[in-house]
Amino acid sequence: METLKLKRVAIDTYKENVAYLHRDCSVYRSEGFQALSKIEVFPHDDGHPVVAVLNVVDDESITSPGEIGLSEQVFEQLGIAEETEVCVRYASPPQSIKNVHKKIAGERLNDEQYLQITEDIVANRYSKIEIAAFLVACAESGMEREEVLSLTRAMVDTGERMDWGEKLVADKHCIGGIPGNRTTMLVVPIVAAHGLLMPKTSSRAITSPAGTADTMEVIANVELPMDKMRDIVKHQRACLAWGGTAKLAPVDDILISVERPLSMDSPGQMIASILSKKVAAGATHLIVDIPVGKTAKVRSSRDAMELRKLFEYVGDRMGLHLEVIITDGHEPIGRGVGPMLEARDVMQVLENDPQAPLDLREKSLQLAGRILEFDTDVRGGDGYRLARDILESGRALDKFHAIAQAQGLNQQPVQAGKLNRDIVAQTSGKVEAIDNFQIARIARLAGAPMTKGAGVDLFKKTGDTVKKGEPLYRIYAEYPSEFHFAKEAAANHSAYQIGK
Amino acid sequence: METLKLKRVAIDTYKENVAYLHRDCSVYRSEGFQALSKIEVFPHDDGHPVVAVLNVVDDESITSPGEIGLSEQVFEQLGIAEETEVCVRYASPPQSIKNVHKKIAGERLNDEQYLQITEDIVANRYSKIEIAAFLVACAESGMEREEVLSLTRAMVDTGERMDWGEKLVADKHCIGGIPGNRTTMLVVPIVAAHGLLMPKTSSRAITSPAGTADTMEVIANVELPMDKMRDIVKHQRACLAWGGTAKLAPVDDILISVERPLSMDSPGQMIASILSKKVAAGATHLIVDIPVGKTAKVRSSRDAMELRKLFEYVGDRMGLHLEVIITDGHEPIGRGVGPMLEARDVMQVLENDPQAPLDLREKSLQLAGRILEFDTDVRGGDGYRLARDILESGRALDKFHAIAQAQGLNQQPVQAGKLNRDIVAQTSGKVEAIDNFQIARIARLAGAPMTKGAGVDLFKKTGDTVKKGEPLYRIYAEYPSEFHFAKEAAANHSAYQIGK
Repeated sequence: METLKLKRVAIDTYKENVAYLHRDCSVYRSEGFQALSKIEVFPHDDGHPVVAVLNVVDDESITSPGEIGLSEQVFEQLGIAEETEVCVRYASPPQSIKNVHKKIAGERLNDEQYLQITEDIVANRYSKIEIAAFLVACAESGMEREEVLSLTRAMVDTGERMDWGEKLVADKHCIGGIPGNRTTMLVVPIVAAHGLLMPKTSSRAITSPAGTADTMEVIANVELPMDKMRDIVKHQRACLAWGGTAKLAPVDDILISVERPLSMDSPGQMIASILSKKVAAGATHLIVDIPVGKTAKVRSSRDAMELRKLFEYVGDRMGLHLEVIITDGHEPIGRGVGPMLEARDVMQVLENDPQAPLDLREKSLQLAGRILEFDTDVRGGDGYRLARDILESGRALDKFHAIAQAQGLNQQPVQAGKLNRDIVAQTSGKVEAIDNFQIARIARLAGAPMTKGAGVDLFKKTGDTVKKGEPLYRIYAEYPSEFHFAKEAAANHSAYQIGK
Repeated sequence: METLKLKRVAIDTYKENVAYLHRDCSVYRSEGFQALSKIEVFPHDDGHPVVAVLNVVDDESITSPGEIGLSEQVFEQLGIAEETEVCVRYASPPQSIKNVHKKIAGERLNDEQYLQITEDIVANRYSKIEIAAFLVACAESGMEREEVLSLTRAMVDTGERMDWGEKLVADKHCIGGIPGNRTTMLVVPIVAAHGLLMPKTSSRAITSPAGTADTMEVIANVELPMDKMRDIVKHQRACLAWGGTAKLAPVDDILISVERPLSMDSPGQMIASILSKKVAAGATHLIVDIPVGKTAKVRSSRDAMELRKLFEYVGDRMGLHLEVIITDGHEPIGRGVGPMLEARDVMQVLENDPQAPLDLREKSLQLAGRILEFDTDVRGGDGYRLARDILESGRALDKFHAIAQAQGLNQQPVQAGKLNRDIVAQTSGKVEAIDNFQIARIARLAGAPMTKGAGVDLFKKTGDTVKKGEPLYRIYAEYPSEFHFAKEAAANHSAYQIGK
């Protein structure tokens, strides 16, 4: 088989693998490739191949006819030196794509079929449109609970798995949808200060203006190599890291890279994503927070109950001690919405600042209390009081500082976005409701979570009285175009409902 | 707003718009872009923008920090000179994506919502994963017949529309699935020789080893500018062109570019695709051929009837005179499968060659006969005989030559693939069935339709007796890797069922 010289093309194509062949390349012509064909590139000694989408080049300075160019990501995946001779061939379509077609036709898939899909995804054999097809197929016909279990198992089995060597490894998760709900950054130091093990890995935000990882990143590094994370957990009993770097359930990160631009987040995918990460991270005990409210992800107690049952079904079979708590999700928690503003709220609570948002403090204490009660030495009902003592004594703050320092403090302090605008009440009265979706949307348009200092800072919450012209919240943005979109959205619908 | 110098980057990204910005470009940094962000590029005088996915460049020779690079396709869409100063901004998410999310949630969309989607698609505001999400959402929950009508209308309204200035403009369409079924190339010259107007535009193959456009291209040019097509039809009463170049229902071609790699072809999408092209092409009278068989696309008369009703419902409301004919689809038609081999069969029929495949001849005469009866001067029941007279007299052959010559003969005659292998019977007996899917699959693996000379040539049809070791068919391929895949597939399952 003919070979080509490997070339690194200095183009960053993110999670999309791209290869470049010159139009006059003899391999390109003799194999009958087309632009956007999927090809496999492999070392001559028949090592592990990489799969990439083909772009055809008409400029020899990018890739010459005797070369195969790879974008930065693919080049790293292949992991061999430039100028090495490599072979190229058509990538056979991934075997498991037939399972996706079955799912589109409304069929139910089994353990093996989900495993085949995740194996092909983790080997980069799926293009982004094939991943999109899989996600939409699952979202639309829904997944049987047995299927959610199959996908969860498959996602765990196609990645690395941590073992902490302890009987109780605590974790918590909120299904999201409530802006400002940064309880994790409070629960972790409280629980770790008590002595329970809580090595927390969080995703970045998918459709929200900030995730725990995005917010923690304002204060400290969250991208930790496995060794370093283990070391921190050994000394601190906890960490606040981003799961993506840790090779845990790697399929989850690939799925999220397509879910994010599609703004998708279906129940089956959500539960598989959450539980696979938890199990792979070695969690044994898990609290799941499901906020319910008119503008939350879950709108009725009936839906919350269905979701709870599904969590319990999958969790039990994955060997987790899992408890679901259904919470109030009728408005944002705390004041800040966006990574930097939420980090500020968290620090106020940890510092027992009188200005600290009470709702964030209260909810965090309740969740931490439930986790503390996983400890057989804690009497049922004593968890909340214990958590409050740890917070008020400053031990939680000390623990948080120790964790952040161990992870590496962020050397470039984040400022609130330099552009800002107050949104004011159009009438006087009492705040009756705050639309979670709209607040999240405005914060995202303003640039959160990518721009750390962007977001929304709430001055009024439900039950507060306001006068016409009084500020309801402030929008922060860094870049003019984002500032413009956010202001436009707020002008159309402020998110506040004000009654007499 | 800051401007950048436009640069054409000599990379062919096919239907995916890609823009390149250097990592040190001040606009890239100040706007907070990310790789794979969607951006809009527009001339400084605020002309029509193009939307592209962003790749980040680390090599100044590809794109320098003061430049914005565009792949060949995007550069042409923008249509302005290199070095022109242009502006770049975040592309707002397409408004109509909310309709796609509704469809994923199982809702029914209306006229306006489908129009919004097609308008955004035609303006290149959808990424390929967003298009995939739309297609899978429609395929899975299915579309109400009112929705198919909405989508058909929207696809017509977002493109150009032809008017031939005559009351009877004939067309035909087969829903596909039957390899070798190249009746169109026979029906058109017969009908045109009689004097009816039949300006035929066909798609290329989506999931089959050859479409009419792919096959006609073996003999003549099919990519005709609108002017030339009009001129040919004026003089010849017909043409055999490819619809994609003609700006008719352009959304269809974009959808197909995603359907093809996903191997998707759902009923609602199919009918919208077919009828929008027909209406946009100015057809007034249409015959639709639905083959039914165990290995055809439609497997039962009940399914065929449902499809017929849907065609009639949409066709009537689009103002078409539409008739559906349900035909026998239990095995391939003719002998050749693949563009060049099918073109050979067609020419044998036109030339009244005694070797010509009888089933192809017979079916073409029946379809042509039904179209001839659209002519008010032709007595009901006389169409078939009239069609046969036109074929046997050589008038159909003359007409075909005239059309091919007018379109421009292919100067490079296509040869059968240089690699070939006979697949032989494993037992003696009578051919009971030939699997259409498997024959199509083998022909596609061999390289059809991209490689014109690739495909399968059938020596035996249903009812023939064979001896053990006697050849059933021959595989033709041009490239070793494709030849290998095709032989492997044939070895696993020959597609022939042989009984005693």
